[in-house]
Amino acid sequence: MEIANDVLYGIHSQRAAVNFPISNEKVHPLIIESLIQIKKAASQANHEAGTLSEVKFEAISEACDELLHGDYSDAFIVPAIQGGAGTSSNMSVNEVIAHLANRKAGEKLIHPNDDVNQSQSTNDTFPTAGKMAMLKSLPELLKAIRNLIEAMLEKAFEFKTVIKVARTQLQDAVPTTLGRSFHAYHSMFKRDLKRLEAAARDLKTVNLGGTAIGTGINASDAYQQEVVPLLNRGTHLDLNLATDLLDATQNCDAFAEFSGALKNLAIDLSKVSHDLRLLSSGPQAGLNEISLPRKQAGSSIMPGKVNPVIPEVVNQVAFEVIGNDVTVTMAAESGQLELNAFEPIMFKRILESEEHLTQAIKTLTVNCVCEIKANDKKCASDVEKSVVTATILTPYLGYEATTRLVKRAVTEDRSIKEIIRAEALLDDSKIEELFSKESLVHQHSSEKVGNLA
Amino acid sequence: MEIANDVLYGIHSQRAAVNFPISNEKVHPLIIESLIQIKKAASQANHEAGTLSEVKFEAISEACDELLHGDYSDAFIVPAIQGGAGTSSNMSVNEVIAHLANRKAGEKLIHPNDDVNQSQSTNDTFPTAGKMAMLKSLPELLKAIRNLIEAMLEKAFEFKTVIKVARTQLQDAVPTTLGRSFHAYHSMFKRDLKRLEAAARDLKTVNLGGTAIGTGINASDAYQQEVVPLLNRGTHLDLNLATDLLDATQNCDAFAEFSGALKNLAIDLSKVSHDLRLLSSGPQAGLNEISLPRKQAGSSIMPGKVNPVIPEVVNQVAFEVIGNDVTVTMAAESGQLELNAFEPIMFKRILESEEHLTQAIKTLTVNCVCEIKANDKKCASDVEKSVVTATILTPYLGYEATTRLVKRAVTEDRSIKEIIRAEALLDDSKIEELFSKESLVHQHSSEKVGNLA
Amino acid sequence: MEIANDVLYGIHSQRAAVNFPISNEKVHPLIIESLIQIKKAASQANHEAGTLSEVKFEAISEACDELLHGDYSDAFIVPAIQGGAGTSSNMSVNEVIAHLANRKAGEKLIHPNDDVNQSQSTNDTFPTAGKMAMLKSLPELLKAIRNLIEAMLEKAFEFKTVIKVARTQLQDAVPTTLGRSFHAYHSMFKRDLKRLEAAARDLKTVNLGGTAIGTGINASDAYQQEVVPLLNRGTHLDLNLATDLLDATQNCDAFAEFSGALKNLAIDLSKVSHDLRLLSSGPQAGLNEISLPRKQAGSSIMPGKVNPVIPEVVNQVAFEVIGNDVTVTMAAESGQLELNAFEPIMFKRILESEEHLTQAIKTLTVNCVCEIKANDKKCASDVEKSVVTATILTPYLGYEATTRLVKRAVTEDRSIKEIIRAEALLDDSKIEELFSKESLVHQHSSEKVGNLA
Amino acid sequence: MEIANDVLYGIHSQRAAVNFPISNEKVHPLIIESLIQIKKAASQANHEAGTLSEVKFEAISEACDELLHGDYSDAFIVPAIQGGAGTSSNMSVNEVIAHLANRKAGEKLIHPNDDVNQSQSTNDTFPTAGKMAMLKSLPELLKAIRNLIEAMLEKAFEFKTVIKVARTQLQDAVPTTLGRSFHAYHSMFKRDLKRLEAAARDLKTVNLGGTAIGTGINASDAYQQEVVPLLNRGTHLDLNLATDLLDATQNCDAFAEFSGALKNLAIDLSKVSHDLRLLSSGPQAGLNEISLPRKQAGSSIMPGKVNPVIPEVVNQVAFEVIGNDVTVTMAAESGQLELNAFEPIMFKRILESEEHLTQAIKTLTVNCVCEIKANDKKCASDVEKSVVTATILTPYLGYEATTRLVKRAVTEDRSIKEIIRAEALLDDSKIEELFSKESLVHQHSSEKVGNLA
Repeated sequence: MEIANDVLYGIHSQRAAVNFPISNEKVHPLIIESLIQIKKAASQANHEAGTLSEVKFEAISEACDELLHGDYSDAFIVPAIQGGAGTSSNMSVNEVIAHLANRKAGEKLIHPNDDVNQSQSTNDTFPTAGKMAMLKSLPELLKAIRNLIEAMLEKAFEFKTVIKVARTQLQDAVPTTLGRSFHAYHSMFKRDLKRLEAAARDLKTVNLGGTAIGTGINASDAYQQEVVPLLNRGTHLDLNLATDLLDATQNCDAFAEFSGALKNLAIDLSKVSHDLRLLSSGPQAGLNEISLPRKQAGSSIMPGKVNPVIPEVVNQVAFEVIGNDVTVTMAAESGQLELNAFEPIMFKRILESEEHLTQAIKTLTVNCVCEIKANDKKCASDVEKSVVTATILTPYLGYEATTRLVKRAVTEDRSIKEIIRAEALLDDSKIEELFSKESLVHQHSSEKVGNLA
Repeated sequence: MEIANDVLYGIHSQRAAVNFPISNEKVHPLIIESLIQIKKAASQANHEAGTLSEVKFEAISEACDELLHGDYSDAFIVPAIQGGAGTSSNMSVNEVIAHLANRKAGEKLIHPNDDVNQSQSTNDTFPTAGKMAMLKSLPELLKAIRNLIEAMLEKAFEFKTVIKVARTQLQDAVPTTLGRSFHAYHSMFKRDLKRLEAAARDLKTVNLGGTAIGTGINASDAYQQEVVPLLNRGTHLDLNLATDLLDATQNCDAFAEFSGALKNLAIDLSKVSHDLRLLSSGPQAGLNEISLPRKQAGSSIMPGKVNPVIPEVVNQVAFEVIGNDVTVTMAAESGQLELNAFEPIMFKRILESEEHLTQAIKTLTVNCVCEIKANDKKCASDVEKSVVTATILTPYLGYEATTRLVKRAVTEDRSIKEIIRAEALLDDSKIEELFSKESLVHQHSSEKVGNLA
Repeated sequence: MEIANDVLYGIHSQRAAVNFPISNEKVHPLIIESLIQIKKAASQANHEAGTLSEVKFEAISEACDELLHGDYSDAFIVPAIQGGAGTSSNMSVNEVIAHLANRKAGEKLIHPNDDVNQSQSTNDTFPTAGKMAMLKSLPELLKAIRNLIEAMLEKAFEFKTVIKVARTQLQDAVPTTLGRSFHAYHSMFKRDLKRLEAAARDLKTVNLGGTAIGTGINASDAYQQEVVPLLNRGTHLDLNLATDLLDATQNCDAFAEFSGALKNLAIDLSKVSHDLRLLSSGPQAGLNEISLPRKQAGSSIMPGKVNPVIPEVVNQVAFEVIGNDVTVTMAAESGQLELNAFEPIMFKRILESEEHLTQAIKTLTVNCVCEIKANDKKCASDVEKSVVTATILTPYLGYEATTRLVKRAVTEDRSIKEIIRAEALLDDSKIEELFSKESLVHQHSSEKVGNLA
Repeated sequence: MEIANDVLYGIHSQRAAVNFPISNEKVHPLIIESLIQIKKAASQANHEAGTLSEVKFEAISEACDELLHGDYSDAFIVPAIQGGAGTSSNMSVNEVIAHLANRKAGEKLIHPNDDVNQSQSTNDTFPTAGKMAMLKSLPELLKAIRNLIEAMLEKAFEFKTVIKVARTQLQDAVPTTLGRSFHAYHSMFKRDLKRLEAAARDLKTVNLGGTAIGTGINASDAYQQEVVPLLNRGTHLDLNLATDLLDATQNCDAFAEFSGALKNLAIDLSKVSHDLRLLSSGPQAGLNEISLPRKQAGSSIMPGKVNPVIPEVVNQVAFEVIGNDVTVTMAAESGQLELNAFEPIMFKRILESEEHLTQAIKTLTVNCVCEIKANDKKCASDVEKSVVTATILTPYLGYEATTRLVKRAVTEDRSIKEIIRAEALLDDSKIEELFSKESLVHQHSSEKVGNLA
């Protein structure tokens, strides 16, 4: 196999490109970056351990720095979907660093395996890099969620006096306020934040120093003790070394767990998106309780139509992420003996889920939630018409008598209040008290100290 | 291990009960029945091949008949979820038949392996029995689908003049009729019928005669040629023998395919159930275009509330079946070399999906679809209010001018017709022609020969 | 609809049985038990709040006690798979308690809705009962996991000197010990324990007191403050009240999260089961590094064959649980507005996953792991033959030279040691040092303080 | 919103880019191409129907031809993951065609909606284009499968005399030949071919002419009758018009079905890949029955190691496709009323599955299957050692006696033949006959007319 003279990659990268022509997508830049950071930390640890000379350490370290700060994306040609459990990814980073260092040195100073990869194996560097990439992608996702939580809370306050019919099983239920609906979304996403933070903690445990299978063969004690602290110094990722390195090398439950937390977020985003589409349905022949911002023409044939395009795209990202979790589940479940060969697809899918969720949440917040308007009149008129407000009567009249009143109201198409008056079941002041907004939108005692009506 | 004297099962059944205490569910009765039918056909085939004596053949055959016609459910204690690729299931049937035959003979005439299991292996009898059980469950499912299709068609005719607003992306769209909505459901389920019939055809190909791995070791040629035809004589299942028996023994794609067809049906049932719940939402603060029959009280606290309980149970069965398909997918994918050890869970989940779908469709048809009422007035009034009818104007006024009219109508809260008249854009007769029911509920040319308005 | 005179259930139970004939399975006994405990606590809270008389409170409380301690399983006929978001479940418990109380009182003292269901709704009692049932099932699962962890650790010590070939990507890799393999399983399951405990904490947050939609309509402040503490007094489940009750009523992410933790456990169990089946493959033409206990005859046709039936059943339970998680995911994602109507299927599937996992782990521990034997000689002879031990040479000879030696050893079918000696690359004492067991089964520095060789 | 002067796209494309910034991936080129082909056919149909002038028809038609044959990929900036049910995709194609036609005409001759989109809606053009894109991707997939089938058959003949131990449940079973193993794969993939062809037939039914919801509003009869035949003339895709256009517009079961057929193929590919990895495990401490071609270095730390990288990448693509099917399932299941808003994610995932499967199969065939070598000696020596060959004795000695012989052989570590001779159970000529290769690798009678040993 021939390789062009002027490229930084080598034979192992080239072979991967030939063997794995599944798609055009290359290994994720954050994985490449993380591998380079690992190589840099490893070269220093090896140097301090006395197994790598000063001149080699500096050559590797400088090459790493140049790759980290320059634009060398063309040098990394290994496909994202790859066999070999990440070997091609690791080998390609070894090759590129060695080539660059040797080009600078003007001689064959650095060997990709003996020097750049010293004390390492794909089986400890690649999963460590995968975890680093996921951790690096996380802050933007968490920030997006926090902004969404904030936007939901603002709407909760903005809409706190908008009384509306609640619906259980899509059937009219007792009244609530639109503010409470948005407060419920706010509360839900706060749990997602906690779940992701918890799942991310398990990603911080790495197996770097375990080399091929976790026994640490070919790595010195000094290296093993220093490499993770050195890596933390360069990345601030607060990684820690697993106590059982064979376990940490072969088992992928931390990836499955993190993917599961992303899936939970997807479930919640999808629920809210379904709700927003429902609540804004109409405008004339639907619920029409809220209006979403008009972001684009809704139809090539029906003029004036505007569709809930932002929640729709969020629903679709959620379906993607849930499907990705099945892929990750199967890949994690299929690991065998001392290694799981299917990490590349896990990494690809998890990073995709993180990024798509981040972007979906951003557009949901900025292009939709922040600009939602309440249609107060429609909401209020629905409450007025609703017979389910009769629920307020059962402590006074009992379940069965109230059921009869509701049926009569529906049959005669009259309001519940009218029927009660017609039957002289309660006096007027009691009726007004019970059917007041304050009474209908009952407030649970635990909320009364809060500031939501 | 001790076994009670008076039971028909033996040591292999007992061991399975101890080894696999996952749940109380036993092997599906249709699998047991099918195994017995296989044993009976095999005994005759062996007898005709000259490897089983007349007296043994008759003893086995009579025991099989007694088990098929009597109530011997207590004799089959092997758990449905079992390791061993079905060996316990097959062994238990061998044991029970031998015990019963010997009890009748008053002597140890029949050996469970050498006689009852002669020329057979679990690896050909068990998958054959699994396919037979699925095929036996199918007619009731197909009948339930046919009844649902029929019920949908009846509603299509009943509602053919009920004009209503269509909705795309939950936003008001151009008008349609309620009849067409139900006709669309009818058309969809007809495809499910075809898909299931096609998938079932592949279940008819069996590996009986292939014995342990498909090579047919320990089975005579005469037996191999006769056993499937003899089995068909007793069951009318129209089975045929696979041409590549090793393939038919080790690969489970026919099960995955059948499960996939059930999943497709579940998708379609769930879509319709979502629609029925949406269309009947309200009654006051929802779409309320149809009323589902009131099957039970809807709330323990809200008197008079009635919920769409039948579509809700159908949705849940659909979620079950889709989850079951993932289980079947993983089990089929995990087969190794000459056998898939995970057939028991595939059989359990597929039979469950078939039965739950059958029951769900029955209750959907009888307790819901057949009694749905149209709320014509609500439907018509929504059309009246809708501005999307303006779509009919674009061939005359263009997309942009019509968009402007729609916005003006919405802003001024006037009807589209009023706005056109106000702007004198079309004369009155043209307006009446365009906004007539016939014009609005346009009929595609290909439908004009049909009889749906 | 007619109901027999002598039964405790009433019209709402009967209607559910007719409407939801999906399968024979009734509502899970732990959900029924939990609902009764809720009713008892509620009656006391209502009494203390002054809205339920002493005599009614005592009648309800006594009926609850009798139902909790006697065998009344026949009284609860509502199917597990049900529409109506649990209304039938709640209504049936109300009915049975009222009937029993009235039977004892000899009069129509207690009304199922006005008294037994006072201050409650299905929408707060049913999800609370679902969470209670899951929490009640958990200790047995956790105990089973702890026993498995213990068994794995015992095997880790038992096998600590059994040197063997590791395999990465199923290809021979550097040596390890069988003890470390089992230690890795032990370490992995410890994380599952932590994950389940964390997920269970979120199940303890309930919405009891929120009534229909979380606003607490028709519940007094006094009741709302007392009912959860009273429930804890009777159950020791340490439940706490959600701060946002609308959120807690409509969102099902806690169920999805718990199901996800069960799925993670399933992934890990399946990985180990695959490994055990692989390591015990053979006995002659497989890896044959370990022998699983012989639990039952393995074949009806191949005499003497013994199969890994216990890991096989565990794999199948894992596939079930992973499929169940997809069902739970879809059900949780499909919630709409103020309620998720699909809780019944979530509860059924999650409780099934908990129970099947518990049973699968028990049989895995007792019937398999505890009795696993190491085949030391086979393990040692594989190490002896393996050329991958050459890895130990790369720090001395470099990657490329060692690659050449490996290829020569394979081509000439000689051992690596022979080749090194033939090429006089290292002196004999160095060779013996490098290829000593201690050197080959390298021990990571972080493990040296531990006690695994 | 400002748009650069020199670009062909317009405001609707630009808005989509802002609203849906999920990833960098644009709408699939085959969907764009298909939409352009639809626009061209529609302009002709409209012209023939008399609703589009000659000059406009020619302007649109020429612009379409230029876009189809030139490189205009920069003009299509709409993201693949989009809300709006494809409206942005359709609008962008309308815009680009109109701009290009007007640029050529030097005047505002063509309006994107009134002219290019005449008689059309996103709701009929977009799903039609999606189906066209899937159909266009299919021949390359089918060809790849056919080549794989062919390669498997060649190996079946090449290995027809390689006798080897079969394995059921990973435990040694009766002998087979390696040829039969590959023949079984060949047989399995032939079913996948049939399944895909069947599923593709349902993709050929389109709703073009149904416009917004299937009623065909704003399309003339003449157009409706001509547009699909005209489209076929340009594409040779043999499309046909659905008989129920509302059904065909709103229901996505054809996509779910096609995705399901791709999932079935993934299951089968994954099974074979698992097998190939197992059979080539070792080389010293594994099954080592076959050798896969050495495609790349297997380890950065273990010199000389070669891994089964091609099957590994195929496994991962299979996991992807199975996850994609869950995404498609959820999207199809979530359609509401007259439209499914989630087609964009279905199209993206299905096209991805088709392409990744095509590429995975190609690399599996060329870089792996074609170059597999059999390790005859290892295979034969395993058969020699195996005690499961004793199965051949049961018709002569019975199951129980044979079981005893097997146990004795294992305990005494002697061959079965030795034990039989020691016990003088059969004479030597019978022993030789039974244990001959021909006898052991029994051939089912139905195969004897074939040419596989």
